Amino acid sequence: MCTAFNEQLDSLTETLSQMCGLAGLAMERATQALLQADLASAEKVIGDHEHLARMQTDAEDAAFVLLALQAPVAADLRIIVGSMQNVADAERMGGLARHVAQIVRRRHPERPLPTEVDGYFAEMGGIAVDLGNSARDVVLSRDPERALQISRDDVAMNELHQRLLTLLREKDWPHGVASAVDVALLGRFYERFADHAVEIGRRVIFQATGKVPDDV
Amino acid sequence: MCTAFNEQLDSLTETLSQMCGLAGLAMERATQALLQADLASAEKVIGDHEHLARMQTDAEDAAFVLLALQAPVAADLRIIVGSMQNVADAERMGGLARHVAQIVRRRHPERPLPTEVDGYFAEMGGIAVDLGNSARDVVLSRDPERALQISRDDVAMNELHQRLLTLLREKDWPHGVASAVDVALLGRFYERFADHAVEIGRRVIFQATGKVPDDV
Repeated sequence: MCTAFNEQLDSLTETLSQMCGLAGLAMERATQALLQADLASAEKVIGDHEHLARMQTDAEDAAFVLLALQAPVAADLRIIVGSMQNVADAERMGGLARHVAQIVRRRHPERPLPTEVDGYFAEMGGIAVDLGNSARDVVLSRDPERALQISRDDVAMNELHQRLLTLLREKDWPHGVASAVDVALLGRFYERFADHAVEIGRRVIFQATGKVPDDV
Repeated sequence: MCTAFNEQLDSLTETLSQMCGLAGLAMERATQALLQADLASAEKVIGDHEHLARMQTDAEDAAFVLLALQAPVAADLRIIVGSMQNVADAERMGGLARHVAQIVRRRHPERPLPTEVDGYFAEMGGIAVDLGNSARDVVLSRDPERALQISRDDVAMNELHQRLLTLLREKDWPHGVASAVDVALLGRFYERFADHAVEIGRRVIFQATGKVPDDV
């Protein structure tokens, strides 16, 4: 039974890791859709999200069964409880990628972005992919160094987001109100994506070490 | 020990209920701050959030101890696991109220809102307070009828949010880009506030009945 338990625990961790990777992939595709006004990619991100949501439900059910039948304690209990919380963050990351894709779809065939801010979103999209991949790896490795990279990427994301808001609010934005609204909401989606990755990283490291990773 | 366990379980539920009420109160104050450009109320919302975040941590710790020491099963386990998930939603609701207050503070002494949209935010603020109070009550009563009210309020919130976005995107918004950006983000904060209340309501009713409340 103990072996079966460990296998189920590993399977839960593996599912969470996959979800983080898929969330990063979703944001990569959503960013591509955004920069190229690519409707097919946007539709793919929107359609694929159901799969991530189902993975979350299945993982929560599996975690619940482990708690109910095995009454785990100490480290195992921390991993199971943490995994239940983390799959919610990973699903939400995918949900934010879907929000990006939905804006692309609504504006199609127009581009939602004035080319002036393409660079911001290319960079934020790149960071989002790194965050998804880092979360995917940290969940498996519990490596505090890799978790620190998540915090650093989050700082970079926040800086880009703030600069974007400053551009919208303080400069003479010549692209109209509708595009400013979309750009503001899009920026918010990327920033929140990073916040959820940070939560996953912190929780995993806390589970492994009893300490939260230092802020950078 | 069984009595002590039940007391701890009740205490956890009570804390969650209080957190929902406090989140509603925070959004009530934030809305007042928004409509009246009231810096003192905004600062209070921002300062008070720390308390809600501490309640979340304490509740998560208490739930973890209950899992570790009591190895609960069936209904009790569902309540404990659900409470851990719900306190995160309640904290986030308070966090969204804080975001509203932060925009008020940043724009002070200017009003963030053109008076044209005051009505939207007065109404969204009223719904948010109802949502906080409904969540507070549902957590204690597990009353499916009251949970349905949360779903109805969420529908009303989404409608207001969509109308607000349409106003920003499609009409001839005469108040400038900076205010459009703030109004778009503010609308998003209220809409997300409602989403978290819905999550709490659904989870509580599922715990009590094994069914998710019908969508209205």
